[in-house]
Amino acid sequence: MSTEVSGNQGILDEAASEDREQLLEMLRKAYWMEMETVLSYTANSINPDGVRAQEIIESLKEDIQEELGHAQQFGQRIKELYGVVPGSMDFAAEQSFLQPPDHQTDIVHVIKGVIQAESGAIAHYETIIEFCEGRDPVTQDMVIAILHDEQGHRRLFEGFLREYEAEGRA
Amino acid sequence: MSTEVSGNQGILDEAASEDREQLLEMLRKAYWMEMETVLSYTANSINPDGVRAQEIIESLKEDIQEELGHAQQFGQRIKELYGVVPGSMDFAAEQSFLQPPDHQTDIVHVIKGVIQAESGAIAHYETIIEFCEGRDPVTQDMVIAILHDEQGHRRLFEGFLREYEAEGRA
Amino acid sequence: MSTEVSGNQGILDEAASEDREQLLEMLRKAYWMEMETVLSYTANSINPDGVRAQEIIESLKEDIQEELGHAQQFGQRIKELYGVVPGSMDFAAEQSFLQPPDHQTDIVHVIKGVIQAESGAIAHYETIIEFCEGRDPVTQDMVIAILHDEQGHRRLFEGFLREYEAEGRA
Amino acid sequence: MSTEVSGNQGILDEAASEDREQLLEMLRKAYWMEMETVLSYTANSINPDGVRAQEIIESLKEDIQEELGHAQQFGQRIKELYGVVPGSMDFAAEQSFLQPPDHQTDIVHVIKGVIQAESGAIAHYETIIEFCEGRDPVTQDMVIAILHDEQGHRRLFEGFLREYEAEGRA
Amino acid sequence: MSTEVSGNQGILDEAASEDREQLLEMLRKAYWMEMETVLSYTANSINPDGVRAQEIIESLKEDIQEELGHAQQFGQRIKELYGVVPGSMDFAAEQSFLQPPDHQTDIVHVIKGVIQAESGAIAHYETIIEFCEGRDPVTQDMVIAILHDEQGHRRLFEGFLREYEAEGRA
Amino acid sequence: MSTEVSGNQGILDEAASEDREQLLEMLRKAYWMEMETVLSYTANSINPDGVRAQEIIESLKEDIQEELGHAQQFGQRIKELYGVVPGSMDFAAEQSFLQPPDHQTDIVHVIKGVIQAESGAIAHYETIIEFCEGRDPVTQDMVIAILHDEQGHRRLFEGFLREYEAEGRA
Amino acid sequence: MSTEVSGNQGILDEAASEDREQLLEMLRKAYWMEMETVLSYTANSINPDGVRAQEIIESLKEDIQEELGHAQQFGQRIKELYGVVPGSMDFAAEQSFLQPPDHQTDIVHVIKGVIQAESGAIAHYETIIEFCEGRDPVTQDMVIAILHDEQGHRRLFEGFLREYEAEGRA
Amino acid sequence: MSTEVSGNQGILDEAASEDREQLLEMLRKAYWMEMETVLSYTANSINPDGVRAQEIIESLKEDIQEELGHAQQFGQRIKELYGVVPGSMDFAAEQSFLQPPDHQTDIVHVIKGVIQAESGAIAHYETIIEFCEGRDPVTQDMVIAILHDEQGHRRLFEGFLREYEAEGRA
Amino acid sequence: MSTEVSGNQGILDEAASEDREQLLEMLRKAYWMEMETVLSYTANSINPDGVRAQEIIESLKEDIQEELGHAQQFGQRIKELYGVVPGSMDFAAEQSFLQPPDHQTDIVHVIKGVIQAESGAIAHYETIIEFCEGRDPVTQDMVIAILHDEQGHRRLFEGFLREYEAEGRA
Amino acid sequence: MSTEVSGNQGILDEAASEDREQLLEMLRKAYWMEMETVLSYTANSINPDGVRAQEIIESLKEDIQEELGHAQQFGQRIKELYGVVPGSMDFAAEQSFLQPPDHQTDIVHVIKGVIQAESGAIAHYETIIEFCEGRDPVTQDMVIAILHDEQGHRRLFEGFLREYEAEGRA
Amino acid sequence: MSTEVSGNQGILDEAASEDREQLLEMLRKAYWMEMETVLSYTANSINPDGVRAQEIIESLKEDIQEELGHAQQFGQRIKELYGVVPGSMDFAAEQSFLQPPDHQTDIVHVIKGVIQAESGAIAHYETIIEFCEGRDPVTQDMVIAILHDEQGHRRLFEGFLREYEAEGRA
Amino acid sequence: MSTEVSGNQGILDEAASEDREQLLEMLRKAYWMEMETVLSYTANSINPDGVRAQEIIESLKEDIQEELGHAQQFGQRIKELYGVVPGSMDFAAEQSFLQPPDHQTDIVHVIKGVIQAESGAIAHYETIIEFCEGRDPVTQDMVIAILHDEQGHRRLFEGFLREYEAEGRA
Repeated sequence: MSTEVSGNQGILDEAASEDREQLLEMLRKAYWMEMETVLSYTANSINPDGVRAQEIIESLKEDIQEELGHAQQFGQRIKELYGVVPGSMDFAAEQSFLQPPDHQTDIVHVIKGVIQAESGAIAHYETIIEFCEGRDPVTQDMVIAILHDEQGHRRLFEGFLREYEAEGRA
Repeated sequence: MSTEVSGNQGILDEAASEDREQLLEMLRKAYWMEMETVLSYTANSINPDGVRAQEIIESLKEDIQEELGHAQQFGQRIKELYGVVPGSMDFAAEQSFLQPPDHQTDIVHVIKGVIQAESGAIAHYETIIEFCEGRDPVTQDMVIAILHDEQGHRRLFEGFLREYEAEGRA
Repeated sequence: MSTEVSGNQGILDEAASEDREQLLEMLRKAYWMEMETVLSYTANSINPDGVRAQEIIESLKEDIQEELGHAQQFGQRIKELYGVVPGSMDFAAEQSFLQPPDHQTDIVHVIKGVIQAESGAIAHYETIIEFCEGRDPVTQDMVIAILHDEQGHRRLFEGFLREYEAEGRA
Repeated sequence: MSTEVSGNQGILDEAASEDREQLLEMLRKAYWMEMETVLSYTANSINPDGVRAQEIIESLKEDIQEELGHAQQFGQRIKELYGVVPGSMDFAAEQSFLQPPDHQTDIVHVIKGVIQAESGAIAHYETIIEFCEGRDPVTQDMVIAILHDEQGHRRLFEGFLREYEAEGRA
Repeated sequence: MSTEVSGNQGILDEAASEDREQLLEMLRKAYWMEMETVLSYTANSINPDGVRAQEIIESLKEDIQEELGHAQQFGQRIKELYGVVPGSMDFAAEQSFLQPPDHQTDIVHVIKGVIQAESGAIAHYETIIEFCEGRDPVTQDMVIAILHDEQGHRRLFEGFLREYEAEGRA
Repeated sequence: MSTEVSGNQGILDEAASEDREQLLEMLRKAYWMEMETVLSYTANSINPDGVRAQEIIESLKEDIQEELGHAQQFGQRIKELYGVVPGSMDFAAEQSFLQPPDHQTDIVHVIKGVIQAESGAIAHYETIIEFCEGRDPVTQDMVIAILHDEQGHRRLFEGFLREYEAEGRA
Repeated sequence: MSTEVSGNQGILDEAASEDREQLLEMLRKAYWMEMETVLSYTANSINPDGVRAQEIIESLKEDIQEELGHAQQFGQRIKELYGVVPGSMDFAAEQSFLQPPDHQTDIVHVIKGVIQAESGAIAHYETIIEFCEGRDPVTQDMVIAILHDEQGHRRLFEGFLREYEAEGRA
Repeated sequence: MSTEVSGNQGILDEAASEDREQLLEMLRKAYWMEMETVLSYTANSINPDGVRAQEIIESLKEDIQEELGHAQQFGQRIKELYGVVPGSMDFAAEQSFLQPPDHQTDIVHVIKGVIQAESGAIAHYETIIEFCEGRDPVTQDMVIAILHDEQGHRRLFEGFLREYEAEGRA
Repeated sequence: MSTEVSGNQGILDEAASEDREQLLEMLRKAYWMEMETVLSYTANSINPDGVRAQEIIESLKEDIQEELGHAQQFGQRIKELYGVVPGSMDFAAEQSFLQPPDHQTDIVHVIKGVIQAESGAIAHYETIIEFCEGRDPVTQDMVIAILHDEQGHRRLFEGFLREYEAEGRA
Repeated sequence: MSTEVSGNQGILDEAASEDREQLLEMLRKAYWMEMETVLSYTANSINPDGVRAQEIIESLKEDIQEELGHAQQFGQRIKELYGVVPGSMDFAAEQSFLQPPDHQTDIVHVIKGVIQAESGAIAHYETIIEFCEGRDPVTQDMVIAILHDEQGHRRLFEGFLREYEAEGRA
Repeated sequence: MSTEVSGNQGILDEAASEDREQLLEMLRKAYWMEMETVLSYTANSINPDGVRAQEIIESLKEDIQEELGHAQQFGQRIKELYGVVPGSMDFAAEQSFLQPPDHQTDIVHVIKGVIQAESGAIAHYETIIEFCEGRDPVTQDMVIAILHDEQGHRRLFEGFLREYEAEGRA
Repeated sequence: MSTEVSGNQGILDEAASEDREQLLEMLRKAYWMEMETVLSYTANSINPDGVRAQEIIESLKEDIQEELGHAQQFGQRIKELYGVVPGSMDFAAEQSFLQPPDHQTDIVHVIKGVIQAESGAIAHYETIIEFCEGRDPVTQDMVIAILHDEQGHRRLFEGFLREYEAEGRA
């Protein structure tokens, strides 16, 4: 491209292309994690039966939009770093723990599944944040905000689980 | 269940369980079609480069919400018919024609992919509508409305394609 | 009336007056069903005690407006078909199963009552829809939409009941 | 209940249970008055024919929501005073004067019916307000506000009647 | 077009081109009916004089937007069925009964004109709905909804006329 | 009319009736110009095919409302000047240049048509403004504002045309 | 004031102080005309009885805000021209024709009063507009817009009067 | 009027006509107090000069709407009690203390005027409230709410005055 | 202050300063009760764990704003009565029963704490209302409205408690 | 351009190109005046210190948007008259009187600067308005509206200055 | 808990429990700082008298919500880090400098108090940010945002103080 | 200043004044960069001609507000760090590459100019972020967010450029 660019462009600099490649790899994984969560939460926000399930259904229904938003942020950042957002053929499901349970009144199954999904995301985002240190403050800042959402969400479902444990059902 | 139910309950009647099973099969397929479209349109609303691509990007970005809404409607109807919305492990990608092209300025690739995806959906929904005739007017009415959206959307992209054909680029 | 009307006016045609009479009979019944539901849901959205009851209270409170809207739609359609919406002296309560229980913490009583009320409505609306086939597509379309609401609502309360059954309380 | 309550609790005090019983009786009557008005106004906001009737139709249509709101306030207050909101089987229609007239262009019939209904409500609410003096300022305050609505509403319809009287039609 | 389309595409199928042609003819007629109504209602929402006329003016003013919306829906459907929306040179006025009366206080003239216009539309839409049965559920569904609007609108103006008849002025 | 009117009433003065007649003639022409534009823009906001056409479609779709608003302003002013808004039988199409082109991808045809329509309106409005000088500042002020809209609109489409000319397609 | 002001300041120029004085006189009169209208319309939007009166009541109720807005505009302009908005002791009522009639069903009295008030305002505003020509385009522009409101308002009430005249009651 | 009214109608009872007359006298006085305040606050929200004056200007500008609302409430209540809202000829200015000061930077003059106006209103409203005790709880409740506004408003301006006193300027 | 005040100023009169002092004492206590509730509800809307706890969390979270609003109303009234809102050093915690429980799943602890806090407030507000009778109708009216909120809130939590008692857990 | 244009196009006519050139010159100057004001007001809405400064800060902060809007209107008009909006290299600062003062509590400096800037704008806009007379009513109308804003704004700041002068600080 | 958690969970990791304890200590202190500010600002947004005080009152009134929001964020973060939000008995007032002054027109006292409170918060938040470096980016990010609010707020009040110092009153 | 400040105040500490000076220098430069962008984008959002230009015009029009917001954030931060926002006389244009092109259909010129402007901003913001590390987390956080906007914006225009390059026009 003939447009002259003066000064250090940080992670977007030509000199940073290797870092960018590594980061893109991590962002694509994050993208798919969020997208699978959209699938899983949609199913789990419709299937469960019962009064108590309503609280969880409403919580997950709101999260669908939030997680889709996260996926779009990751996709957008991939674009900004000169990467390509992968197509549906690249999708490989991993959340075996969030499949529909045998009985739709089995809320504990769903709660544990959500906690496991969030924990996986948290661990991966910690890695991205660490990698970005001194390399890409923009991605780092964005992922910290997403991490906060996931931490808060997991904590809520841990509280749900505690109640069931206190009642001797989990 | 001990609650007495008097009168014919239509598709929800015990006598209609076989019809219900067949319909559930079709609805689950429709659910996955819409969900894959969410994945495909997300990627295709981020990847393309260029001024002209903006029109398509904006169109697809709005459709993501619309298609997710369709998926949720299908999922909700599955629930109402005593079925279970499938989990992410059941997902199998089929839209090979909507994967990212080699060059992100290749808009014709995206346009053709959208047309093919919509055509597949239209054909499947025609089948559901026919099956519902005299069996389940509620599902029929819901699918007719969704079919209208898909027809309109395909027509728009056919118009896009015509322009490229007129310019000799497609 | 001296205004000339050319062409077939469907259900509003003079030739269709008998059909119209039958349909009006069914619509008046539907009108009262919805109106009694307004009364029943108002009481049942205030009386119940308990944390779990809140979910049901909120659900019913929203439904009051929805059911009143249905009643108004039925009333409006009665008007359009040259009928008269009946006055309060014609009202005869039928939802014996939705009266206040002995203890306001008896949620199962309310849940079963709602399911029975919705089932009655569903059966009646199926009849109307069948009758309208080939006679009055406008009423048919309107009733299909209302039927969808009632089906969805019943399914929700069936889920509530399942939970109590699973806990051995219903 | 083991929770300690210190200090005078007014109408909610155990010592006030007799007053509470009398008040509950009056509130249940008020509840049914408002609920019957909902039924009557719905019919009378749909049935009338004519240009001039539109003004009355719009006025009554808005009042349906207002009167339903009043009914809900009475029901809520019944609950707060440890009473139970009655079910639909307890309903007994009393507004013989608000039934549909023989001709739907007979607006004077409707106007007079509304005035009579409002007058009955006003007289009953005056009684409640008097009873509450020095006993239950909260109920009193609530009923004064509702009384204001009814007075204003009756005055409006008295004005309508005057016009018809001036024209020699009432 | 080189894009492969698998499965039956209903009314959009190549095999259905003859049906499509007939339907397009009917939709173009419907389009012009609605458009002429826009012209007629604009004039009739400005010209009339008098207090009573205000009710009609407001009613027609709102209808302008509604009817324009109908026209746009018909136009959009023409497009989706591969037709072309006609230009202004194709317009031929037919609503001789909705021209401005000699005296702008002659409201009965306007009321009768509206009833006649709506009756014509109703008859034509009944024909379209019948034609679409088993051929094009999407157009059918769309026209049923529009038919409902027109029926309701005509019923309102019939009520206006009744009042004038009762007063011996029509 | 027996109501006494003191002081000069400007264009509404009895003495100004001849001026008013001339002005009414011009306003009726303006009214029809805007109304035909509503018809033409509706067709041209639906028919065109292609990505680039979307920009024009959106621009025209917004203009439909704007032009309808202009027509209503002209109609309202006709009323205020004691004239009568003409009915649909008086309409005579003149925008031969805005009829649908042979190919719906022929955007240049639409652009040129819009420019010609706007130019005609601009010339007519200049005449009205000149006529109103010292005679009717209210109409003048209203028309200046409408003229501004049309000038801005034409300038936009002239820019569109320039691009096609620069590309050698117009 | 020591701030240097270069260039011609139009009506705000020191050289224009005499013109300004004359204009202020006219604006103060306009201010009181609008303010008295606020008083008159408030009374006349509450007092009248009857169905038909509602249309006038609603019309006047909206006008109260509009006329108060006009008064504030006049007041603000007085301020900008270095004048002082007069206090309540300077108010002298002049609208003898808008006092409450003997019978509150006498709508014709109100209608004629409104027409007379508007006519007075129109004559005065014509004078201001003429005076401003070549002297103060800002005030002129502001008054033209207000004049338009008054003309439209009077025309509406003239239409009301015509109806009563046609019915032989005015 | 032939409509039967059963039961005590409180202040609206025929037996209470004398009380009603006295109350109407007081309400008409209140009506004019509020209306004069509208006039006075309009002038005083435009005239003052200076940075500090802005706080007072904004405060008074908001109060105009509030006070006009009070006037309308008083007028409406007069109507409900079978009285007539007086016309502009009955207005007699009394707020000599709220006329424009000699210098528009003399804010203390305005502050003191507002305090005096509010004090007059407070004293009059205390009298009405006392009179209504046991006679008309609706008017009493309405006036208590208005009294609260005036007390709060006066307290604010007393604070303003204290500051000026502390600075030795009042 | 030199501003003349004519007429009885009620509780704000110089003659009422002793009453005012007593009332201020009661209002300061009320102010602190509400403020401590803000602190307690904030903690108790965050700490609890579990699905069922969500209902209580949401209820308390909304109440924080409501109670803060009450505190501000009490503070504002203190100001209006010439008192001073106390600073944070004057705060002394009293709600020992609303401190965090040992286990965050112990919801019954929270419910009982809320009931006790509300009961204390109710008793204190009854005292204020009684004191204000014939002395200060404005404060009385304000406190009645707040009392209603607290009564309703306590009733809700009593319902929660009943459920736990019915389940043998409280 | 080959599009035929019939009739006089006013200022856009080919015959008016010389007038257009002169007008463009004036509009470009106006454009820069407004743009420099954006720069100046941004600085002056951030820099000042003090309570009294807040009033000015808020006033200027709102004006930034208003003045930017003016600049965009001027730019848009330049475009419509076939001119080109100048780039940043053409900008030459002229508001030496609106640079930051030595002490940020020196509010008088800012006030005088604003008055001087507004006076310059007013003088220039008077010239444009005069030039447009009989040549370009659209530009004239637009500039009159902007002139009104500037006059009102200057008057406000003159009031601020008067206060400081009255206090002997300016 | 039996749910498996794979990967490093950062500050939420079991290995980080000591860091978490230290951080919780700091967050509880921050929580109380913000909560005391809510108390202090409530009092100081009601007590002050005078025109100039209004600016400060409005500023503090908005801050109450902001500071309560901060407190809730700190409380929520405590929860997420497995801590417990403390109850009201743990509160110990420290802002001796923000107690009500002797004279309510003593604004300087309030300004200095706010500056001191903000300075204390700033120092404490700097410590938290430093501690979080490399340990807990989520808390760090949250506290940086809060720190920005406090810095901006203090700067504003420093500006207020400067004005009083410039006037020789502080 | 006599207000005691305890604890480390970070970048606002007296000890950090040198750092602050350096940072202020950088922020002033950033301020001017954003401000010049406001000027450049305003011109470039009006000047271009053509359908394709519309996409760029709309993009830049939205950016004007965004960039002005950035400038205000930089200005506000300068203030918080005890600096002074510079006046218009200090402005020196640097974006020679964003001046209007010779032909207004030359979109590539604009696209390249935007990319160059964004690149310059990115490089400068990278420098600020680096400088702030360990010195001023608040400024750092603010600039990271702005940097993200600029990166996204540049990427969009790089995509535009690619399209033109693919078409052989850039």
